[in-house]
Amino acid sequence: MKRLKSIFVLAAAATLLASNAHAAKKVRWKLAMTWPSTLTPLADAPVKVAKLVKQMSGGNFIIQVHGKEKHKAALGILDMVKNGQYQMGHSASYYWKGKDIKTVFFTTVPFGMTAQEQYAWFYYGGGMELMKEVYDKFRVHSYPGGNTGVQMGGWFKKQINSLEDLQGLKMRIPGLAGEVFAKLGVNVTNIPAGELYTSLDRGTIDALEWVGPGMDIKMGFHKIAPYYYTGWHEPASEMHYLINKRAFKRLPDEYKTMLLTAMKAVTADMGYQNFAMSAKAWSEMKKVNLKIQVKTFPEPVLKAMKKATDEVLQGYAKNDPLFQKIYNSQQKFMEKARKWSEIGEFHYLQTSQAVKE
Amino acid sequence: MKRLKSIFVLAAAATLLASNAHAAKKVRWKLAMTWPSTLTPLADAPVKVAKLVKQMSGGNFIIQVHGKEKHKAALGILDMVKNGQYQMGHSASYYWKGKDIKTVFFTTVPFGMTAQEQYAWFYYGGGMELMKEVYDKFRVHSYPGGNTGVQMGGWFKKQINSLEDLQGLKMRIPGLAGEVFAKLGVNVTNIPAGELYTSLDRGTIDALEWVGPGMDIKMGFHKIAPYYYTGWHEPASEMHYLINKRAFKRLPDEYKTMLLTAMKAVTADMGYQNFAMSAKAWSEMKKVNLKIQVKTFPEPVLKAMKKATDEVLQGYAKNDPLFQKIYNSQQKFMEKARKWSEIGEFHYLQTSQAVKE
Repeated sequence: MKRLKSIFVLAAAATLLASNAHAAKKVRWKLAMTWPSTLTPLADAPVKVAKLVKQMSGGNFIIQVHGKEKHKAALGILDMVKNGQYQMGHSASYYWKGKDIKTVFFTTVPFGMTAQEQYAWFYYGGGMELMKEVYDKFRVHSYPGGNTGVQMGGWFKKQINSLEDLQGLKMRIPGLAGEVFAKLGVNVTNIPAGELYTSLDRGTIDALEWVGPGMDIKMGFHKIAPYYYTGWHEPASEMHYLINKRAFKRLPDEYKTMLLTAMKAVTADMGYQNFAMSAKAWSEMKKVNLKIQVKTFPEPVLKAMKKATDEVLQGYAKNDPLFQKIYNSQQKFMEKARKWSEIGEFHYLQTSQAVKE
Repeated sequence: MKRLKSIFVLAAAATLLASNAHAAKKVRWKLAMTWPSTLTPLADAPVKVAKLVKQMSGGNFIIQVHGKEKHKAALGILDMVKNGQYQMGHSASYYWKGKDIKTVFFTTVPFGMTAQEQYAWFYYGGGMELMKEVYDKFRVHSYPGGNTGVQMGGWFKKQINSLEDLQGLKMRIPGLAGEVFAKLGVNVTNIPAGELYTSLDRGTIDALEWVGPGMDIKMGFHKIAPYYYTGWHEPASEMHYLINKRAFKRLPDEYKTMLLTAMKAVTADMGYQNFAMSAKAWSEMKKVNLKIQVKTFPEPVLKAMKKATDEVLQGYAKNDPLFQKIYNSQQKFMEKARKWSEIGEFHYLQTSQAVKE
């Protein structure tokens, strides 16, 4: 009788265990970032995701985060996640432009959407579905990973007053914007981050773009270049998370939702953090260098940039129907979104300026 | 021997069970919203939070969401959460202005911060800590709950060309903005939502404000009032979640993090959804009524509104040191944040307009 009873209890316990078997499953993942672990706020984001997932799973789902100093393959993230060496990555989609030019749409494009407009497009304008179409062939999932907001047009040693001033100008500006500037006669170069300050200081280059005040301040450019141009080329650079599809499929359903929810919360939070950093840094930069002048490219230069951007994008669209489809989706969404941005946020900021004494 | 063995297995099972005891705990909560269940996107947010929490907990943490049609106490949410009748609420902080005027700071104030600026303040500028100071005495936690973005200045039947045009104008505009308008001679009234359309149509009122295109379109105001004024009074209305402190304390740690993470993700998402709704609605409104004109109040009117806003806020600050402290915190943060908004997002939007053909 006693034995029967304990068997019964055992069976009941086993049933209870089974109902929690999924949630209790021990999972250990590794995530590789493009950035060194010290690069705030980009590198903070995956660390926060890992912390949340660990807490929600009662310590059972662990994600180890490796910075570039560990894996030494900043631009190998997509490959490493695809082949399962890492289950996850944190990077920026436009770094995979060499593998597929369509990846640029999921970071930002010159004269494209602002962060608010772009998130609305991702989640309520078909963007997520289009991103899936592009990333499926790499056997990875891609999700938004945090936005830097409008990136500044860069630090210039000389003013740009006309299109002629761009001729032969030596500038570090990567990606699509580099292609656009090259069309306008700029001598576009790429230089490793660690050598940028010296290159600009010594005149090896005349100009460079990095991110915005929050991330530029540590680089020190504001001490050696007086002109800070407003943005046009990366209006809302979105980082992204990559997840190996097979690894994701093997996760218990609870962990899948924990991971996606943590990523979405932290993605928004990175934007808040970056905004706060930029607000603080901008006020500090102006104290360090009283001569900093904020400049906007003259209208003829801007119009030439816009025309060159359209030509570059339409050039890619010609032979790639999915490129054309995503381009059309963004342009169509942006047209409506921008009209709302203009009567909403833009007019409000204008009004607030008007009432200042 | 056999019995010993089964006891051993039983003990092992019990240990395993214990380690998952927290995560497996069945919890059933109720959440009361200020809004009817049909009010998209506000009412969608808590439903999404409940769904995520349910999935992450393997069906063990259930939150039942009640709309105003169920509990019939739209403005009783804070009381019901405080006294434990509901464990959670979804509402807007400024509805508790009658209990404590300082609650207004956690929704929006006239001529205050934009959504981006305000989130940066909440999470990286001391806002969350100040909100806690205000809400602790109600024995509830308060968290951001989704932003409507810039609210439009409202629908007017006549143009406002001068301060005189505000004299005796009958307008539905609640909250602090109502106090400001009253100071400028407006006959401020409050009218239930269901009677607004008829009141405006029949001329019982001359003007009203609601939210923005996305939520205004269902109300139909665009069919009967030709002037849509740009925003000044609610630049970033943030909803909020209320949680009963004792109920929260009793949650297993895993559930606490699940709930907070889901709320933060959905809060950001409500902003994306609302933005997409407004972009779409604005393009539709203009098709329905070709005569809609977007107007901005003339500069002397805006300056008078700003002056009256400062007087109203400083009036409250005089006898309430914590009000003064929060006011200073917001003003100081906004000053730096706005300078970054201006060289970043504002200049970008201006530049994009300049390159349009």
